Amino acid sequence: MTNRYKLLIEYDGGPFVGWQRQDNGPSVQGAIEQAIFLFCGERVTLTAAGRTDAGVHALGQVAHCDLAKPMTPGILRDALNAHLRPAPVSILLAEHAAPEFHARFDAIRRAYRYEILDRRAPPALRRGHVWHVPRALDASAMHEAAQHLIGRHDFTTFRAAQCQAKSPVRTLDLLQVKREGEIIVIEAGARSFLHHQIRSITGSLKQVGDGKWPPEYMAQILAAKDRTACGPVAPPDGLYLTRVEYPFTQPRPAPSSPRA
Amino acid sequence: MTNRYKLLIEYDGGPFVGWQRQDNGPSVQGAIEQAIFLFCGERVTLTAAGRTDAGVHALGQVAHCDLAKPMTPGILRDALNAHLRPAPVSILLAEHAAPEFHARFDAIRRAYRYEILDRRAPPALRRGHVWHVPRALDASAMHEAAQHLIGRHDFTTFRAAQCQAKSPVRTLDLLQVKREGEIIVIEAGARSFLHHQIRSITGSLKQVGDGKWPPEYMAQILAAKDRTACGPVAPPDGLYLTRVEYPFTQPRPAPSSPRA
Repeated sequence: MTNRYKLLIEYDGGPFVGWQRQDNGPSVQGAIEQAIFLFCGERVTLTAAGRTDAGVHALGQVAHCDLAKPMTPGILRDALNAHLRPAPVSILLAEHAAPEFHARFDAIRRAYRYEILDRRAPPALRRGHVWHVPRALDASAMHEAAQHLIGRHDFTTFRAAQCQAKSPVRTLDLLQVKREGEIIVIEAGARSFLHHQIRSITGSLKQVGDGKWPPEYMAQILAAKDRTACGPVAPPDGLYLTRVEYPFTQPRPAPSSPRA
Repeated sequence: MTNRYKLLIEYDGGPFVGWQRQDNGPSVQGAIEQAIFLFCGERVTLTAAGRTDAGVHALGQVAHCDLAKPMTPGILRDALNAHLRPAPVSILLAEHAAPEFHARFDAIRRAYRYEILDRRAPPALRRGHVWHVPRALDASAMHEAAQHLIGRHDFTTFRAAQCQAKSPVRTLDLLQVKREGEIIVIEAGARSFLHHQIRSITGSLKQVGDGKWPPEYMAQILAAKDRTACGPVAPPDGLYLTRVEYPFTQPRPAPSSPRA
């Protein structure tokens, strides 16, 4: 019998080469897989909803894995957190999942947040967790520009050269820019995103906030379907995967083990 | 002629032995004094409004110093920030101050915030910046308990053994506890605080939040004027010096140099 688990994960992307296991350094995936091995001796492969890049953070990444032995989810979560120390990765929740649940393919919506620290002085407390832009940005102009990207479009302009998606067409259902004191918060939502799409959009919105581009110019560079029309890509520091949504949110109780 | 400057400072207390220069490790004071020396070759002594302990953070520490050469405040701020790298200390603002301005003695109110992460899973993104309490706390009971401490009292119960203040009497004008999602925020305000006062109060409020003590018990331990009646002192991680207030908030323009 398969015991599939769904994990809700928070991490600081700073010390990692990204979500995905790679040869060139520590990954979030590798850290959690190692914690699973230390806890129960099983070598598993974790599958995540979104493979975040180096330096990108998560408040609500979702991943699944199969374990041979049935586990009480609360015990699994606590044990993984104990074994993950001192890596800045925290399992917020572990749940039994249906055997056919797939963290990546079943996800119907991803939400990301990008935070810009818009002040002269560099960050001391949120270093690596925001993009520091010392010049005053016009958040209203950025929000106006962002509205040109809402809907179903060919996002070739905002797509990394190394993006592996078959199609550059995506449907952006949310792209909101608002100022909260010294922080400019960009909230983005879509069924799925292209590689570097949010950082490319953020970099272009910053050009608008800076007064270099008028808000309408965003429609023009989108229509150009040309990577070279994009603004400089924003750094990973300010980007957070905040939430992944699935059609059925009810966890499935396992018949073979008690729930925690 | 004296050129006195007032600095508004943000820092992450994690890597420091505290604000004050000490022999046993790096201090915030030492880091800024070194940056001043690197910038203009002057050896100065900084005086702060509050000498925060090791691991305690600041969003709005205030300090003053005298420089022989007159400086444009904006240039001083930017130069210090450049020289402070990579220390997690940021000069938010530099201003000309009156020659008699004293960051510590002139302060009429200090405000601190304490943040408790109240959830089962440990922090990944805010590690070292919150106190992690895995058990669910009752924030309303904590707020009710806190109200017994408002006003002018002998705070001997909530005072560190090594506290150097002449009197244990302080006037607490604000002590508010509220839940913001997974975070319990404690806001405290007073003209001045005793050593470890907020961490001692927070540790005692946690006993109430845990259900170990009823809210009224706070009045009892305050009246005891007995250090051993205090709850376990909360760790420095969750404490932030947020604001220091002075009777005159108008900066004084220097006649000898332009303002930035």
